[in-house]
Amino acid sequence: MPENFSLSNQFKIVIFFKIYKDYMFSANTYLNRRSALAADLANNGIILLTGNTELPMNYKGNTFRFRQDSNFLYFTGIDLPLLYVTIDTGTGETTLFGDNISVEDAVWTGTLPKLEEWAARSGISKVKPLKSLPAEIGNGKKIHYLPPYPANRKIFLSELFNRPIAKIENEYSTDLIRALVKQRSIKTNEEIVQIEETMNNVTSVYHIEAMKMALPGEYEYKIAGHIEGTMLKHNCTPAFNIICSVHGEILHNNNYSNQLIKNQLLLIDSGAENNMHYATDITRTTPVGGKFNQQQKEIYELVLAANQQSIASIKPGTTYKDIHLQAARILAEGLLHLNLMKGNADDIVAQGAHALFFPHGLGHMMGLDVHDMEDLGENFVGYDETISRSTVFGTAYLRMGRALREGFVLTVEPGLYFIPVLIEKWKSENKFSQYINYKNVEKYINFGGIRIEDNVCVTQNGCKLLGRAIPKTVKEIESLF
Amino acid sequence: MPENFSLSNQFKIVIFFKIYKDYMFSANTYLNRRSALAADLANNGIILLTGNTELPMNYKGNTFRFRQDSNFLYFTGIDLPLLYVTIDTGTGETTLFGDNISVEDAVWTGTLPKLEEWAARSGISKVKPLKSLPAEIGNGKKIHYLPPYPANRKIFLSELFNRPIAKIENEYSTDLIRALVKQRSIKTNEEIVQIEETMNNVTSVYHIEAMKMALPGEYEYKIAGHIEGTMLKHNCTPAFNIICSVHGEILHNNNYSNQLIKNQLLLIDSGAENNMHYATDITRTTPVGGKFNQQQKEIYELVLAANQQSIASIKPGTTYKDIHLQAARILAEGLLHLNLMKGNADDIVAQGAHALFFPHGLGHMMGLDVHDMEDLGENFVGYDETISRSTVFGTAYLRMGRALREGFVLTVEPGLYFIPVLIEKWKSENKFSQYINYKNVEKYINFGGIRIEDNVCVTQNGCKLLGRAIPKTVKEIESLF
Repeated sequence: MPENFSLSNQFKIVIFFKIYKDYMFSANTYLNRRSALAADLANNGIILLTGNTELPMNYKGNTFRFRQDSNFLYFTGIDLPLLYVTIDTGTGETTLFGDNISVEDAVWTGTLPKLEEWAARSGISKVKPLKSLPAEIGNGKKIHYLPPYPANRKIFLSELFNRPIAKIENEYSTDLIRALVKQRSIKTNEEIVQIEETMNNVTSVYHIEAMKMALPGEYEYKIAGHIEGTMLKHNCTPAFNIICSVHGEILHNNNYSNQLIKNQLLLIDSGAENNMHYATDITRTTPVGGKFNQQQKEIYELVLAANQQSIASIKPGTTYKDIHLQAARILAEGLLHLNLMKGNADDIVAQGAHALFFPHGLGHMMGLDVHDMEDLGENFVGYDETISRSTVFGTAYLRMGRALREGFVLTVEPGLYFIPVLIEKWKSENKFSQYINYKNVEKYINFGGIRIEDNVCVTQNGCKLLGRAIPKTVKEIESLF
Repeated sequence: MPENFSLSNQFKIVIFFKIYKDYMFSANTYLNRRSALAADLANNGIILLTGNTELPMNYKGNTFRFRQDSNFLYFTGIDLPLLYVTIDTGTGETTLFGDNISVEDAVWTGTLPKLEEWAARSGISKVKPLKSLPAEIGNGKKIHYLPPYPANRKIFLSELFNRPIAKIENEYSTDLIRALVKQRSIKTNEEIVQIEETMNNVTSVYHIEAMKMALPGEYEYKIAGHIEGTMLKHNCTPAFNIICSVHGEILHNNNYSNQLIKNQLLLIDSGAENNMHYATDITRTTPVGGKFNQQQKEIYELVLAANQQSIASIKPGTTYKDIHLQAARILAEGLLHLNLMKGNADDIVAQGAHALFFPHGLGHMMGLDVHDMEDLGENFVGYDETISRSTVFGTAYLRMGRALREGFVLTVEPGLYFIPVLIEKWKSENKFSQYINYKNVEKYINFGGIRIEDNVCVTQNGCKLLGRAIPKTVKEIESLF
């Protein structure tokens, strides 16, 4: 890796030769999105959208792969670091703030399209140098900005507004958040196309290949490496750190050091984002060696039923909380049938006893982010004035609770897990002992976990599975081997 | 990707199931390193080493792959986020500050080894909760800390010391930097083993495979994807963003969208870091289709000669600046012979006219960072009181100039490039027209660039190539096809 100008690190970016017109929607798309946003704020000041920068890995010049801010992408489509946009909510006028690179920098980065060209592709007519941003911000009008998640953006805004970081973190605009969630929640056809293409060309391909790799003696990291390598070979990147583990009961497990043993279950939860940054998010659970044993099959069929019946129930007007609770009841009834629980499924779910086995939510919105718009605050995205977050363990972790609308894109991901540390804790507290057969549960202590996740789009009368179907019945999975 | 506790994001880390004893040196190694460091600071206060945290990609919970701070790794070996270490330079006592996870968090992360276990592996006897760090820092003693590169560390230190960020950025300890550079510059045998293993098992493997992929019609991103996928399949990660481009003349090009065309040159500059985080950094340049044309062969042989003669000249006591200048002279003489330059090679190099074609330095130190210790400041690492950085364009970008010592690990990476934007600029300014045959140079305007990079360790009498040889002569490369 050769020497470089220290001053040009900021431009050592990933997209110089991108045929960038292919990686953006039409200018009208962005123009319309910004107009709707400005109209929603009803002539009340200036909207400031902040692009991302490259972040250092182990020193300033060695950066992680650049990832643009999703809100900036949604309203401009411009996939470059160190850019800022203001939108005047009165006139609707948008200005792009940033600096073109010098000839000296071009030695290191190649000749780049000028910011004026990017702006034109995005329907933005005004481009100003970065140094004129403070004057624009300081004109006395109200400034709407979003909650900053990267630390360097907190420092940037703190300097721009001359306010302490602690204040900056809290003075974001909830009006802007609401207007933004309103738009981004409804996916247009051109957005759906992006997700489906990635699903068909990439996600379904590596998921099937990875399932076939679930053989005794294989290592998790080889399978995870195959998945990520396949994404990259298709010009995609991981939408989140891949979960590929024989310990599926550890819900956020990004370690891959285990060697696969016959009779284990391999849980793979993985999604790609394409060069437009639309995400996919699919989970499959495969028995190592390709054959479910009786215990695995019984639990698997419960999760599959919850997955399928949830998908069948999705339609505009229904709340996702109700579908989540329905899935919880399906799982609870199955666990009653297997003598792992006792009592009545309705009571179990109302009390949250099922959450020992299903401690997470049924799903979340998906789009430019795998957990779409999570930077804006989960309650703004998944809840509204008519439905608020539960306080019951398990159900409380449902990100998406509100009534569904046509154009929502959702994950549907029920699961059943046997989490030793949680079972141990609850048992020691005698928690829900009226509902849980701890003696029988302990026979499953090394079971692991099963999750089955698909992505759907809410349609006029129901929902549509995004992308081609990936094997998910016991029969379909076993016949891969 | 399922729901999670928002409060536990900080523990959604990558190493839960790592058989961590395999990923650390012995406790004595870390004990000895810390003792030497404390002794160097000569009973003058407290050293504070700050570990890294996970950094958000597009929202707080969706993080980049965790990368520990290299200084923290060097002195503790502990590859976990949110940890801090103090070393008392008087007593030599080390304290690890951090918090163990709760049972609630373990639901999401699995049971982790306790910090006390990690500390023991690292030879640290004292572990304290994070909340007691401010008291330790506020005891009136001088605190030595390193220049902070992640923005969240700037905020952390600003709050810890109750000093503005602008002050925090400048009040780091140059004594600590010097003591640290002194130790980290000399690689021990156990460090060399790490680099050589990665070179033999991973880097040489994917480089040869990638060279063979240089066929007309192939896409850069497929080759880059194959490289990164291969690293991951070997439990390694990229030490830096892969350069894989038919535009090798763009020195820092991390874009991969071009389709390969016969007669182009594919430049691949790529290194893996293993699970101990030791880096490799190798460049090869391959003709698309496997056969160099005459023009390519002539330039290639010049770069190869510079690479080979530089390696032959490396020995303790020689300055790397002298070897850089020797490489520049070899290249200049070759360009004179090809009628691309005119005049005298010594004058050309003294004036810096060769830098039109070789605008970067011959190489840099390599270790836990691909540009080793770059976070500490290049001048502290590559220069000393006897040799300072040149101000001549090209030579000024040499990171490593000082006298070599046994145990230094270096990259040797001469190159020749035809950079249209730079040629155009210099020509329009009539720059160095006494040395440069612009008319002939323009015949090479679409040539691209060639770099040949190896990694060596300085030995008692010379140097040793690290890892097995990767094809680099014209004949060796052509016979891959």
